[in-house]
Amino acid sequence: MGTDVKNSSLILIELVSKNLSEVSEEEVDKCIEIILSRRDKKIFIMGAGRSGLVGRAFALRLLHLGYEVHVLGETLMPSVNKDDLVIAISGSGSTKLVVTAVEAAKRVGATILGITSFPDSPLGKLSDFILQVKGRVMPTKEANSRDYFARQILGLHEPLAPLGTLFEDTCLILLDAMIPILMNKLNLSEEDLGKRHANIE
Amino acid sequence: MGTDVKNSSLILIELVSKNLSEVSEEEVDKCIEIILSRRDKKIFIMGAGRSGLVGRAFALRLLHLGYEVHVLGETLMPSVNKDDLVIAISGSGSTKLVVTAVEAAKRVGATILGITSFPDSPLGKLSDFILQVKGRVMPTKEANSRDYFARQILGLHEPLAPLGTLFEDTCLILLDAMIPILMNKLNLSEEDLGKRHANIE
Amino acid sequence: MGTDVKNSSLILIELVSKNLSEVSEEEVDKCIEIILSRRDKKIFIMGAGRSGLVGRAFALRLLHLGYEVHVLGETLMPSVNKDDLVIAISGSGSTKLVVTAVEAAKRVGATILGITSFPDSPLGKLSDFILQVKGRVMPTKEANSRDYFARQILGLHEPLAPLGTLFEDTCLILLDAMIPILMNKLNLSEEDLGKRHANIE
Amino acid sequence: MGTDVKNSSLILIELVSKNLSEVSEEEVDKCIEIILSRRDKKIFIMGAGRSGLVGRAFALRLLHLGYEVHVLGETLMPSVNKDDLVIAISGSGSTKLVVTAVEAAKRVGATILGITSFPDSPLGKLSDFILQVKGRVMPTKEANSRDYFARQILGLHEPLAPLGTLFEDTCLILLDAMIPILMNKLNLSEEDLGKRHANIE
Repeated sequence: MGTDVKNSSLILIELVSKNLSEVSEEEVDKCIEIILSRRDKKIFIMGAGRSGLVGRAFALRLLHLGYEVHVLGETLMPSVNKDDLVIAISGSGSTKLVVTAVEAAKRVGATILGITSFPDSPLGKLSDFILQVKGRVMPTKEANSRDYFARQILGLHEPLAPLGTLFEDTCLILLDAMIPILMNKLNLSEEDLGKRHANIE
Repeated sequence: MGTDVKNSSLILIELVSKNLSEVSEEEVDKCIEIILSRRDKKIFIMGAGRSGLVGRAFALRLLHLGYEVHVLGETLMPSVNKDDLVIAISGSGSTKLVVTAVEAAKRVGATILGITSFPDSPLGKLSDFILQVKGRVMPTKEANSRDYFARQILGLHEPLAPLGTLFEDTCLILLDAMIPILMNKLNLSEEDLGKRHANIE
Repeated sequence: MGTDVKNSSLILIELVSKNLSEVSEEEVDKCIEIILSRRDKKIFIMGAGRSGLVGRAFALRLLHLGYEVHVLGETLMPSVNKDDLVIAISGSGSTKLVVTAVEAAKRVGATILGITSFPDSPLGKLSDFILQVKGRVMPTKEANSRDYFARQILGLHEPLAPLGTLFEDTCLILLDAMIPILMNKLNLSEEDLGKRHANIE
Repeated sequence: MGTDVKNSSLILIELVSKNLSEVSEEEVDKCIEIILSRRDKKIFIMGAGRSGLVGRAFALRLLHLGYEVHVLGETLMPSVNKDDLVIAISGSGSTKLVVTAVEAAKRVGATILGITSFPDSPLGKLSDFILQVKGRVMPTKEANSRDYFARQILGLHEPLAPLGTLFEDTCLILLDAMIPILMNKLNLSEEDLGKRHANIE
């Protein structure tokens, strides 16, 4: 069984790796550029469920980088203003609470960066910029055959990565991969981040 | 720059993959066994900061598997009872809030499963079972040379994966890799999980 | 100044007391009846901002009474099913996130209990049952003259209870006042509640 | 039954009112003074369970007043620095997680304002300033006879305000009563608060 979990983890990471390799370089460039341009604005992170948790993990690093960042669903939610940045994460792009909040933010003039598998989704259509991240929901032939392969090895009757797992895990790694690039651009050291890290937990 | 983020994401995933390959099969087996044995008990997930977020992502999947699960720091926290399971996640194993809560849970007779890089840490010593997950904090020679390699490619002056990033990302993938194994053992389909998934977000 | 805060607290409590006295006995009866009838169903509490916090405080007591209760916005959110109970709290009755979630819950057949100042609001219209709680938003002549009185005493240029304060504080006291009645009906002692209270915080 | 809840709410508010009247004017003065002196520092609110929710409700108003405020247990927790203000709320003054976090904050030189029923508690001893708020835990003869009276009227076998209810409700009203005084001192209008209020919920 130990072998099963280790195999399953290594196959899972291969599937994530595949998704990462399909991310658009132009879209990622744009994300970095937009985030760098919001140094003196507020950034709002929005997502529900596990996508919201991935967004929170990114939000914490933005806080460590010195940004004023807020997360939809936390207690402390200030007003969104014109030119603030909203980063909304939803694999399907149609999570109701996220779309509702994004609509409200757009109305006051915020810039919307949507991270989704579906550019044509409600979130995609509301977004000023899109970062497309694939999940299992848009399997290529190759992804399908890897998934099939995984089931064979592990004797699974069900998918290795149920529901939004692949989208969520790919997003976490991709967003974490932006951090060292942002650190370089902002000339921040790990020590700088550490100084802003919580010290009472 | 796009290339930089993509490269950074692919190197990050290599580092995670390396950590995954060093997880002990016996320890992972034991985790699956303990979780399966708590079908009719409460499971409490504890972690601070980004480790807490990874714990919450796992908690959501346990909920989808039909477990009664609670997370330290959420509003709705019932009492911990004898034989309940605590899964505590802390890379350093010395996060004060986690250690304090684990001590209290141990006092009432809960079983402690500690996920940490350091078996000799306060959390490690309180744990009935340990799942050791390496972060950057315990670099092998090979991990160091990979890190060095990453900095060369990307021209970074600072680590690719600052602070607890490697521990946190490795934990997420490893815990997600347990889900299909648990599904198989519990004879649950993706549809079963979907039925328990939030439907009002 | 100390005198000012004490005076302001005693006037605030008078305003809350006035609002409490205007609550409908029939509506409160109905609330108790509905909650008692959901002993084996899930209860979902929904509210944003400070109304959400008041909802969480009530949710904790329902947990202590032995209910399975969930709160919109917490990590652990299961599916809403037919006959589950939604208690939605919004002074204006038009908080977008709350209305969106209530619509989704109504679609799957949940019973909606709306707590609001405005029965004609979107939330009011979606509700199967309404508990009307006044805030400052619907001042009677008397409330206005009390408010005026408060400003005179304290030399305030602005309202004593800005924004939703009166609605929120009235709701907390009213919901807390339901607890001893529910305890009586359910034959539960304070000790029973204490046993379910968090013991690791 | 409706009558019961209304009676119970009116008795509850009388009990809260009694507690409010016993708050020390000097201590409340000091609170206002300390908060006013932290205009350019961070304020951290700490509390567990329902006391934590009351703290969050106050935190939201401090945010509306323009303070940089953070809440223990929320995702976004920066570092505490020398001269930052910690407002810790615990009726018993011995809530483990709160005491642990306060100790850590004190070590880095933060100022501790403890709100508790027990000045001699661990929290009380760690505090630079104390705001004593009574709960049921320190009943005066009069409070006891009111409680007895309440049970007679309502035919209750158990207390009207179980566990920490009286402490929590008294704190909410008292902290809300500080807001108009702070608004006056800071020369802020309700409109100023409204502009900082969340606009996407």
